[in-house]
Amino acid sequence: MTEPAWSMDDVAWQRLAEGADALQVEERTCMPPGFGAASGTAGIKPSGRPDVAIVTVTTPDPASAAGLFTRNLVQAAPVRFSRASLASSGGVARAVVITAGSANAATGPAGDEDEERIAGALAHAVACPIEQVLRASTGLIGTRLPVDRVTTTIRTLVPQRVARDDEAFEAVGATIMTTDTRLKAATTVVDVAAGNGWRSVRVSGVVKGVGMIHPGMATMIAVLLTDAAVSPEVLASLLRPAVSVSFDQLTVDGDTSTNDTVLALASGASGTDEIRPGTADADALGAALAAVCRSLARQQAADGEGATCRITCRVRGAERLADARSVSRAVVGSSLLKAAVHGRDPNWGRVAAAAGAARRTDGSAVSLDPARLRIAICGTPVFAGEPIPFDADAVREAMAAPEVAIDVDLGLGHASADAWGCDLTEDYVRENAEYST
Amino acid sequence: MTEPAWSMDDVAWQRLAEGADALQVEERTCMPPGFGAASGTAGIKPSGRPDVAIVTVTTPDPASAAGLFTRNLVQAAPVRFSRASLASSGGVARAVVITAGSANAATGPAGDEDEERIAGALAHAVACPIEQVLRASTGLIGTRLPVDRVTTTIRTLVPQRVARDDEAFEAVGATIMTTDTRLKAATTVVDVAAGNGWRSVRVSGVVKGVGMIHPGMATMIAVLLTDAAVSPEVLASLLRPAVSVSFDQLTVDGDTSTNDTVLALASGASGTDEIRPGTADADALGAALAAVCRSLARQQAADGEGATCRITCRVRGAERLADARSVSRAVVGSSLLKAAVHGRDPNWGRVAAAAGAARRTDGSAVSLDPARLRIAICGTPVFAGEPIPFDADAVREAMAAPEVAIDVDLGLGHASADAWGCDLTEDYVRENAEYST
Repeated sequence: MTEPAWSMDDVAWQRLAEGADALQVEERTCMPPGFGAASGTAGIKPSGRPDVAIVTVTTPDPASAAGLFTRNLVQAAPVRFSRASLASSGGVARAVVITAGSANAATGPAGDEDEERIAGALAHAVACPIEQVLRASTGLIGTRLPVDRVTTTIRTLVPQRVARDDEAFEAVGATIMTTDTRLKAATTVVDVAAGNGWRSVRVSGVVKGVGMIHPGMATMIAVLLTDAAVSPEVLASLLRPAVSVSFDQLTVDGDTSTNDTVLALASGASGTDEIRPGTADADALGAALAAVCRSLARQQAADGEGATCRITCRVRGAERLADARSVSRAVVGSSLLKAAVHGRDPNWGRVAAAAGAARRTDGSAVSLDPARLRIAICGTPVFAGEPIPFDADAVREAMAAPEVAIDVDLGLGHASADAWGCDLTEDYVRENAEYST
Repeated sequence: MTEPAWSMDDVAWQRLAEGADALQVEERTCMPPGFGAASGTAGIKPSGRPDVAIVTVTTPDPASAAGLFTRNLVQAAPVRFSRASLASSGGVARAVVITAGSANAATGPAGDEDEERIAGALAHAVACPIEQVLRASTGLIGTRLPVDRVTTTIRTLVPQRVARDDEAFEAVGATIMTTDTRLKAATTVVDVAAGNGWRSVRVSGVVKGVGMIHPGMATMIAVLLTDAAVSPEVLASLLRPAVSVSFDQLTVDGDTSTNDTVLALASGASGTDEIRPGTADADALGAALAAVCRSLARQQAADGEGATCRITCRVRGAERLADARSVSRAVVGSSLLKAAVHGRDPNWGRVAAAAGAARRTDGSAVSLDPARLRIAICGTPVFAGEPIPFDADAVREAMAAPEVAIDVDLGLGHASADAWGCDLTEDYVRENAEYST
């Protein structure tokens, strides 16, 4: 991944993460006013589970829309389609259709034609220009989608859409699951100026993706819905840092997929004033987006393929934010540390080794002085420039929890960041040794 | 890792790799004239196996010596010691002592004092300045070495040294093993000008290290011995590219250790003329060093922790060498591809995804056009801009071999490179979940 080029200073970044964490987030869906959804089965998944989900915008105007996509150079056809849609629509959307079970990646020009037909079917059914349709797909690379069955399903689903129905949005989250073992959803509410008073604005999201997960980003698809009134430009400017402090700090296996997509749609149906850039309301919406994304990222880490626990690495005392971000990612990304956590082994040497091997995204070394380095596992200090004697059995016991906290203090400055991952298990290997067969 | 800053153009790099591969390399040790060795047991390894090895120089002058070390910022005390030795001796060495079972890493100032005592004991026993002693150690991070037992063992070993004895050098290779399951050794011979004729020069090496293995480099220790007559400067200039086309293209688990050390010693005992930089003889010695390092790296990949096979990725058609190197490393480093290979699953989508996610060491994207990308697994073409129908069962069968070849053609230029890794197995996880306990 490349560090964000847009300008936020280290303080603003940390304030965003802290502001997000201060918000109350519930791990459930909420469909904000202005949206409808439906899910069905086109037979893409061999399991016969639902595999086509549509989200449509029910307000007179299309929604503001923003998207972030994989940085993999091998980009799936639906990723190319959604990028092009956002560019030609100027950032508005009327509908989203997501398919699960096949990635439609590395399928050549035929895969692009499939996308046109699928999006065209939805555009026709909801009577909007095709560039107001967004696409995402997840599943096996190199397989085509059963386009006829998908378009038939879409035509069946459009009349079945349910508006303002939390369960319909939850069904979207369930439909896009592949190797996920549980639904991942998050919702928060913030107040935004409306005339002389305030009104609540909802931000709710679902995400799939628990393998091929790595910063920049992952085999993940996230759909974020809000009833905020916000222009496409402001929505995009808020989405980027929200993703940066959430999905970009998540790794399951170090692999970057061909299909990663985060879509945010804002219907404006809350009836608030339009949110202007640089205002307190923009900060509030930004924090809400970040809060939902951070919650989703944490849930993804806990549901990592084969995982038995989430690993959270919090780095403090970094000279600069880029170092805190890199070191925390390096720690949760270390195969050896992940295996040690699986064995509930307080092997802090692997934390030190991973931290020392961290590189900034430009390949340069982070600022790190082993003599100032401090490490704690599950709250117990284990290293402070040299080994600290500690009760290994007590730490082992603490590591049996569903979340293992690794705290690293670089002792050099004031920047901090966190990253999430999961343990590496025999089940991860088994699951991925037998995926396409 | 950072790409080498010394200047060799893409053509010279490829010529080096090709020249190395054209040499005959035997997977055995050969102790060149001018060296002696002995191994013993100080009780560092809980198994009670030999854990202290010494190599000494038997010629009147000390040997030319060059070393390359981990780029991890958390560097073990023996790494710091050897770096300092090479700097203050001007690149000559009289003796090497390697310990196995404890890394002496992250042990604070006490760890550095231990190094002084261990190297001092050997310097005293062979009557040389302490800066002519080199050190390396491997094992658990954060544990101290039993210095008294190590120095006692060294004093016992010095009189037991055997010169020009292949088995004594083989015993060095066996002594430094930790989680390695087999000895890794390589030997080649090249002819070098001597007066009006030619004489044979031997290059032989042993290596340990099958976990925490990643470009830049790994928990590995390699000792290379040659009887070539070569200055420290020329030896160092030949060692860097040799390591670059070998150990730097090897990954087992993406982890960079605190202790990686490659030492090369040249005794000059072959009686050839001194090898001058830029000559055909320098090229020959460089190719021999590269050949030994490439053989050792391949053996390491095959012996990767928990591995059942080696994965070799050969990338051709890259616009530039850096891209070929990055893409080949990304493919063999992909957890998902490694797991798929373990399941003998010809899941080429993971090859495409890994290739597309490859980044140059400065974080920039490689040149890659999915439409021109071609992939073959075990010699069978499976993708050429779009999926190619192939006999999956036949490829699965071919993948049961101890080496799985992944060929990637970027179709953009003439640069090529290879990289080595291994499959990801349940045994890797088990082994590393229970390492320190």
